[in-house]
Amino acid sequence: MSQATAKVNREVQAFLQDLKGKTIDHVFFVACGGSSAIMYPSKYVFDRESKSINSDLYSANEFIQRNPVQLGEKSLVILCSHSGNTPETVKAAAFARGKGALTIAMTFKPESPLAQEAQYVAQYDWGDEALAINTNYGVLYQIVFGTLQVLENNTKFEQAIEGLDQLQAVYEKALKQEADNAKQFAKAHEKESIIYTMASGANYGVAYSYSICILMEMQWIHSHAIHAGEYFHGPFEIIDESVPFIILLGLDETRPLEERALTFSKKYGKKLTVLDAASYDFTAIDDSVKGYLAPLVLNRVLRSYADELAEERNHPLSHRRYMWKVEY
Amino acid sequence: MSQATAKVNREVQAFLQDLKGKTIDHVFFVACGGSSAIMYPSKYVFDRESKSINSDLYSANEFIQRNPVQLGEKSLVILCSHSGNTPETVKAAAFARGKGALTIAMTFKPESPLAQEAQYVAQYDWGDEALAINTNYGVLYQIVFGTLQVLENNTKFEQAIEGLDQLQAVYEKALKQEADNAKQFAKAHEKESIIYTMASGANYGVAYSYSICILMEMQWIHSHAIHAGEYFHGPFEIIDESVPFIILLGLDETRPLEERALTFSKKYGKKLTVLDAASYDFTAIDDSVKGYLAPLVLNRVLRSYADELAEERNHPLSHRRYMWKVEY
Repeated sequence: MSQATAKVNREVQAFLQDLKGKTIDHVFFVACGGSSAIMYPSKYVFDRESKSINSDLYSANEFIQRNPVQLGEKSLVILCSHSGNTPETVKAAAFARGKGALTIAMTFKPESPLAQEAQYVAQYDWGDEALAINTNYGVLYQIVFGTLQVLENNTKFEQAIEGLDQLQAVYEKALKQEADNAKQFAKAHEKESIIYTMASGANYGVAYSYSICILMEMQWIHSHAIHAGEYFHGPFEIIDESVPFIILLGLDETRPLEERALTFSKKYGKKLTVLDAASYDFTAIDDSVKGYLAPLVLNRVLRSYADELAEERNHPLSHRRYMWKVEY
Repeated sequence: MSQATAKVNREVQAFLQDLKGKTIDHVFFVACGGSSAIMYPSKYVFDRESKSINSDLYSANEFIQRNPVQLGEKSLVILCSHSGNTPETVKAAAFARGKGALTIAMTFKPESPLAQEAQYVAQYDWGDEALAINTNYGVLYQIVFGTLQVLENNTKFEQAIEGLDQLQAVYEKALKQEADNAKQFAKAHEKESIIYTMASGANYGVAYSYSICILMEMQWIHSHAIHAGEYFHGPFEIIDESVPFIILLGLDETRPLEERALTFSKKYGKKLTVLDAASYDFTAIDDSVKGYLAPLVLNRVLRSYADELAEERNHPLSHRRYMWKVEY
C-alpha cells in the first residue's frame, strides 16, 4: 500500500479494491442541493482527466426522470446525502442499482436509508473538528482520483491525496488571512436583499452552493450563481454600483474567465467581494492538483463569510421556514 | 428522400449526408448565453435517446479552457452564434477543428467569422416571419435528430421533423390563447425588481434563457432560473407572497418535478405565473416527441410575455447599457 493509499478512507479503499478489473464507461454524480454542488469540481476533474469515462451530473429526481439510456452495468453512480435521508437521492440509488449500475454513497450517517440502498458507503466527517481530507469534498476526491487511478492509471492520485492531507493547514491559514474581510463583508451586506455570486470551471459549484444554500436557504437573500463565461452574454447588464457580487478566482484553467468578469465588474460595479485562491498559501500542494483543490479552500473560506453574515444579520444559518418543517 | 428529409434545411441535409459512415462518440454543444440556452433540450434528447454517443454542453470559453480530454477526431461539436461574431464561439470552433473534431455552426449570418471557422454551416431564420422549423431551435433539432438517425438508426427523426413542421400552428394557437395572460403578467410585474423562473428537464434552458437574456439583460430585472428538482434543497426558502415566480410545466418525463414545485409554490407564494404546455394544442404532434418540442412552444410564448413586459415598463428589449457599447 502506498503512503497516499494509507491516507484514504477505509471504505473508499475497499471500494477501490473491488473496482479493479471492472469495466466502467460512465460516471453519474447524483445528489441534491449542497450535496450536488460539491460534485461540480469532480465533473471538472473527469472532463480534464478521463480518456474513456464519460460523466454527467444531475439533481437526483432529474436523474431518475431523465432516465439516461446509457445508465447500466458499465455505470458508476456516486451519490451523496448528508443525512442519508434525502428521499430523491435514496430513490436514485435504488433506481441506479435496478439498472445494474455500481453505486457508492457518501453520507454523514452510515446507518441511513441511502447507506442501505447503495452497494458501497463512505462516511465523511463534518463540523469544526473535521479535517479537510475527511469531509464530504475530501472523501469525494478520494473516490474520484482513486477511480481514475484504478480504471485508467491516471497518475494524479498521489498528488491529490497528499494535497488533501495538506489542505487543513491551507484552510486554517486562509481563514486567518480572511477573518477581517469576512467581518467587513458581513457588515457591508447586512441590509442587502440580493447578492450575486460568480465563478467558472472547478469553482462554479462553490458559487452555486453559496447562492442556493447559504444565501437563499439560510439567509433568505435573493441570489443567483452566474457563470463567469456566460456573464458577458446577458447577466452583466444587471450590474451597477448598487448590486453586490461575490466573485471567486480559482487556480484552474478557467481562471481567465473569472479574471475577465472581475475586471469588468470593477469598472461598473462597486459592491464587490473577491475571494482569490491565488492569495492563499498553496505551496504544500502539488501544481498538478492546485486547480482542483482551490474550490475546496474557497468553499471553506466562504463558510466563514456565511457565519459572519448570519451573526451580523441575527439570522442563524440553522433557521428555516419550510425545510424539515412543512410538507413538500 | 423521405418526406421528412425533404423538409430539412439543405445545409443540414448535406451535413447529414457526409455524416454517414463517420464514427462519433461524443457531441459537444458549445455556445454562449441565449445561443447556449437553446441547446439544453438537445442535451436532454441525447441523454434519453443515444445509446453510445455521450454529450456535454458548455459555454464557449469554458469549453476551450476546460479542454475536455475526450474532444478529438470522434467528436462532433455543434456551435451557435446569432451574429456569427461571438468571439468565444468563433474561437471554440477553431479550437475544436484543431483537435480534429467535426464542427457544424448555426448562425443567422452565413458570411460571418463563425461560418468560416466551422466545416459545416446551417443558417436559420429569425423574426416574426420565421417559421418554427426554420428558427434556431428548429434547425438544431434537425441536426440532433438527423445525427441520431444517421449514427444510431434512431427512429424518432420523422416524428421530430413532422412535429417541427406542425409547430408554427401550435405557436400561433398558443400565442392567441396566452395573449391576455401576457398582458396581465406585464401589468402585474411592471414594478418588480426580481422575478425567478423555474423548470426542469427539457424546459430548464427556456427558464435559463428568460432569466439571463430577457430579465437580466434586456429588462435589468434580477433573476435566477431555479431547477425545479433543486428547489426543495435550498431555493424554496426564498419564496413568500411577495416573491414572483414564472413556473414552466413541460410535457417531458420531468414534469412531476415541475408540478411538485408548483404545488408548493401555490401554497406559500402568491405572485405566480404558470405556463403549462399541457394547455396548448399538441394534437398534431406525435406523442413520442411532444416532450422534446414543448420547450420550443414555452419559449415562443414567453417571448410574447417579454414583449408585453418591455412595453409596459417602457424599456425596449433592444436597450443595453454595456453590451456592444463598451469594452468587455
